[in-house]
Amino acid sequence: MKFNPNSFSPSHFLWDFADGVATITLNRPDKKNPLTFESYDELRSTFWCLDQSWDVKAVVITGAGGNFCSGGDVHEIIGPLTRMDERGLLKFTRMTGDLVKAMRACPQPIIAAVEGVCAGAGAIMAMASDLRLAAPDAKTAFLFTRVGLSGADMGACAILPRIIGHGRAAELLFTGRSFSAEEGHGWGFWNRITANVLGDAQDLALELAGGPNVAHAVTKKQLDAEWHVPIDEAIEQEAQAQALCMQTNDFRRAFEAFADKRKPEFKGD
Amino acid sequence: MKFNPNSFSPSHFLWDFADGVATITLNRPDKKNPLTFESYDELRSTFWCLDQSWDVKAVVITGAGGNFCSGGDVHEIIGPLTRMDERGLLKFTRMTGDLVKAMRACPQPIIAAVEGVCAGAGAIMAMASDLRLAAPDAKTAFLFTRVGLSGADMGACAILPRIIGHGRAAELLFTGRSFSAEEGHGWGFWNRITANVLGDAQDLALELAGGPNVAHAVTKKQLDAEWHVPIDEAIEQEAQAQALCMQTNDFRRAFEAFADKRKPEFKGD
Amino acid sequence: MKFNPNSFSPSHFLWDFADGVATITLNRPDKKNPLTFESYDELRSTFWCLDQSWDVKAVVITGAGGNFCSGGDVHEIIGPLTRMDERGLLKFTRMTGDLVKAMRACPQPIIAAVEGVCAGAGAIMAMASDLRLAAPDAKTAFLFTRVGLSGADMGACAILPRIIGHGRAAELLFTGRSFSAEEGHGWGFWNRITANVLGDAQDLALELAGGPNVAHAVTKKQLDAEWHVPIDEAIEQEAQAQALCMQTNDFRRAFEAFADKRKPEFKGD
Repeated sequence: MKFNPNSFSPSHFLWDFADGVATITLNRPDKKNPLTFESYDELRSTFWCLDQSWDVKAVVITGAGGNFCSGGDVHEIIGPLTRMDERGLLKFTRMTGDLVKAMRACPQPIIAAVEGVCAGAGAIMAMASDLRLAAPDAKTAFLFTRVGLSGADMGACAILPRIIGHGRAAELLFTGRSFSAEEGHGWGFWNRITANVLGDAQDLALELAGGPNVAHAVTKKQLDAEWHVPIDEAIEQEAQAQALCMQTNDFRRAFEAFADKRKPEFKGD
Repeated sequence: MKFNPNSFSPSHFLWDFADGVATITLNRPDKKNPLTFESYDELRSTFWCLDQSWDVKAVVITGAGGNFCSGGDVHEIIGPLTRMDERGLLKFTRMTGDLVKAMRACPQPIIAAVEGVCAGAGAIMAMASDLRLAAPDAKTAFLFTRVGLSGADMGACAILPRIIGHGRAAELLFTGRSFSAEEGHGWGFWNRITANVLGDAQDLALELAGGPNVAHAVTKKQLDAEWHVPIDEAIEQEAQAQALCMQTNDFRRAFEAFADKRKPEFKGD
Repeated sequence: MKFNPNSFSPSHFLWDFADGVATITLNRPDKKNPLTFESYDELRSTFWCLDQSWDVKAVVITGAGGNFCSGGDVHEIIGPLTRMDERGLLKFTRMTGDLVKAMRACPQPIIAAVEGVCAGAGAIMAMASDLRLAAPDAKTAFLFTRVGLSGADMGACAILPRIIGHGRAAELLFTGRSFSAEEGHGWGFWNRITANVLGDAQDLALELAGGPNVAHAVTKKQLDAEWHVPIDEAIEQEAQAQALCMQTNDFRRAFEAFADKRKPEFKGD
């Protein structure tokens, strides 16, 4: 089955696609957009499909009705989990982890546009994005500890410290406390605070969709791939990756534009 | 020999145990609580014992008399070291490193409550804690370079950059300069500045001692275990770790409390 | 051929050596000190030579005429690259990567003194230094994306996140936007903002040149070596490294000075 971003019609969230930018909107606003088994699964599959769908050049993820996402639904997810055996639990934690793996693996930069509540798996989806924009009222909590769970959820113990440092991550994961947009901006969790969070996220996505797309895909991959390797190995990986980018027509076009004092236009090849 | 937190009576520091919270107080206030060979060794052994002493659910470490710790005693440690052979030196640096290993390995969250001088091995013990609270007058220095040594002391070149970033860590370790509570808070070294540093640390420890304890032990372990591994491997480690936490009664109790609109009470199983 | 810091006379930058401090000045001020194939190569060779030239005890790198470095010259580097085959491109990206490897491998602390434009490979050289001082007008951009390239250039995807965190690094590398001295200071990229940037950098270099030099070399090496290893392995590496430093005469001299209430004087042995 070929994934077609123009005709894709998911069951558990809204999908909009225009000018190379896909917008995913979590859409159960009456409950602050919680996730269910089915929506986890469909989000995961969508990001898997994006890995081969280069017509989609950037992704915005947001929530309807003034909130981002309240995390796993208490009655639809947490209740059933308390009655599940080891096998079912591992299947579940691997599926949720797969969502983060898929978000990190796809070539598109993902921009989270966050208002209001951003909790649990919602906070994870913001964390797993490449860039994060917050409305002034964004209230974010990695609150797993509040339901008796560890902070080791969907990659949080790996990814959160890489964004905000080990000490702040430890506090958030041990206490489950929420943090304000301003705090999170000071820590480097949010890239920007803006009242027009969805509009700004889509503008930024449009800018990134404008390319250079191969180069953006390489940047995204290498930011993850080089964290845990020796500096010298990282530099060799970059030598190979950048030599590849230097063979793209986008690189040649940029040079020609600079030489002519024009603004470069990228075409993605 | 079984370690009993209720009757433990160390020789080189004060020990208090109440409501699951152990408080370790360095207690040579006339000299700003420096360490000696013997106190290093006893601290190390204590944290080793805590690994199997789950009655202790959180630890506070602090100093008596308005200072945290001035580091290794000049006459009792540094002098003898200048006269020691390779074998003795490596034995010493491994023993001090073992203290940090033991602090990171034990399942309890450790909260440093720091006033006044926090220098050398004192700064290391703060760094090796999970959470760090500072009084406004806290003055912290990784001053190894001032005595002719490298910043590679007890894990500082690994752990400090993970908390405050590589550039700031480099400055502190190359110059040995002290930093204020406010600077350290802005960098993410301190989680909070408070005039009531010991009281606040004990309140926070009591909150964490309230559980979920298995989950906290997993959070602590995974924050260290995932730093140096690929994202995908980290996510698989978390899938397994969190599936374990989902089998605890604390998780079930939390769900039941939420469903009944009660505040969850954890019991540690 | 023996490298002699007193008589070294490079072709593509200025070299000054006094009191153990070498100052490298990029010197094509009319074009904001861009790099060429030849200057890359000579910078790389110079840092390689420094690896065995312990008379040089600290290095300052700066730019002439109010700017640090505008990166690879558009006509002298980018143009030729667009006409090069895979082999030539990889040879080039490896050479530029070698410059960063050499800056990280040499034992001397390197201090970047940055005014005005600090872009592309210029931003990389600042990033690859150990300490970074900025003038209030410093304007820094990792602008590879603007010429159609990825952020995976000369180690940026590895080193930049370790300094300022993954989220901020992602924004800079995806967008190529510039940041002000003040922003960069808040993120931990700059260690200090100062109007007297070259003077302050040379004072700091002189302080570091004063030793302990073996210890500084160990600190520099271990800050890189321990990022990607387990905590326990890092601590063992430090136990060995610090035991070595404890055998230096500089360590003994420091103890004797402290015991006599004198300021320690290090001699580098």
